[in-house]
Amino acid sequence: MSLKLYGYWRSSATYRVRIAMNLKGLEYEYIPVHLAQDGGQQHQEGYDRLNPAHLVPTFVDDDEDIILNQSMSIIEYLDERYREPCPLLPAHAVERARIRALAQDIACDIQPLANLRVLNRLQESFAVSTEQTHHWAKQWIAQGFAAIERRLQTQAGRYCFDFDISLADVCLVPQVYNAKRFDVDMSQFPLISKINDQCLMLEAFQKAQPENQPDAP
Amino acid sequence: MSLKLYGYWRSSATYRVRIAMNLKGLEYEYIPVHLAQDGGQQHQEGYDRLNPAHLVPTFVDDDEDIILNQSMSIIEYLDERYREPCPLLPAHAVERARIRALAQDIACDIQPLANLRVLNRLQESFAVSTEQTHHWAKQWIAQGFAAIERRLQTQAGRYCFDFDISLADVCLVPQVYNAKRFDVDMSQFPLISKINDQCLMLEAFQKAQPENQPDAP
Repeated sequence: MSLKLYGYWRSSATYRVRIAMNLKGLEYEYIPVHLAQDGGQQHQEGYDRLNPAHLVPTFVDDDEDIILNQSMSIIEYLDERYREPCPLLPAHAVERARIRALAQDIACDIQPLANLRVLNRLQESFAVSTEQTHHWAKQWIAQGFAAIERRLQTQAGRYCFDFDISLADVCLVPQVYNAKRFDVDMSQFPLISKINDQCLMLEAFQKAQPENQPDAP
Repeated sequence: MSLKLYGYWRSSATYRVRIAMNLKGLEYEYIPVHLAQDGGQQHQEGYDRLNPAHLVPTFVDDDEDIILNQSMSIIEYLDERYREPCPLLPAHAVERARIRALAQDIACDIQPLANLRVLNRLQESFAVSTEQTHHWAKQWIAQGFAAIERRLQTQAGRYCFDFDISLADVCLVPQVYNAKRFDVDMSQFPLISKINDQCLMLEAFQKAQPENQPDAP
């Protein structure tokens, strides 16, 4: 298969790309990179050549000699290259910007603060407990969701923006998955919860769920 | 003036947008939001209406009734709306993706971990010292730069991508500024340093520097 996705079942950045590839109907080979086993397989030589930042996901298209990192960049590339089905950004510039901003509210302001490498570093650097890092993650997610919930009040329909799936939904659903891991009380965020439920009725989202990946325990 | 930018002189996300607006030759009103004074002016009611996440920057176009948050989204909007002069993303999809990925290496994996609100939260949550948070920031920036330096070896020219200024440069220069604040040894990163110096020879970058803003002390 020409398209390959290197990722980890529970990585929310990888989860985003899986959703996007499923929405586009793209067949791909999924290659697990275990972020904890063997001292972190992302640090091994083979993966280092693909992604010197040692992060997941990495997208590879062998036929076109393309290696890409950064989930949002990968998804925008897929959206430009395979516009149909299910365009993830609309044609209108301001709408595109609003959708990108919501996606970045998650990808720049929430997810980076609550992922495995950061929680590990907190423990190493400050000798804090797992409970304390759990609370750290929970706080940032809840704070970020509070702002997103307010934005959604003016722009949501069935999904984050009106009635079409967009890049924002592709980022939201993995972040909700992550929020639940950290015991965020989702009843505070009724719109986020409703959109998450509606997305998860679609096969593209279901197939992408962490538990449905071959590397899930 | 129709275009307004709410920001903070030392915020690297605001710095990115200032560079982009200068490169596009756009006149705008700069409205300082002091992140420390008055308990943080970003939490005040007037700003809360513009940006419920209480983060900077926020871009406003009064004529077109546009309010946008997230620096990368704002910059891509400006690049689509005002393509010339100085397009910040090239026409070719794979090149666009590589540039976006490098920008996101900074905006998703470095900057979110080393900004004021995060360093403050570390102190509040874990009772750690300013020295410890300084070291935290320095470590993340150095780690991120090490991967970026390697990527640049295969794709840099005068700037991050060949010989045209791009979104990647617009993100790199503010991150170098930030790195210096945290005493990152930049001699480890000769390519990043060279590109930074070459960008800072341009007036658009100089005018955007934190020290040249009206709210700099």
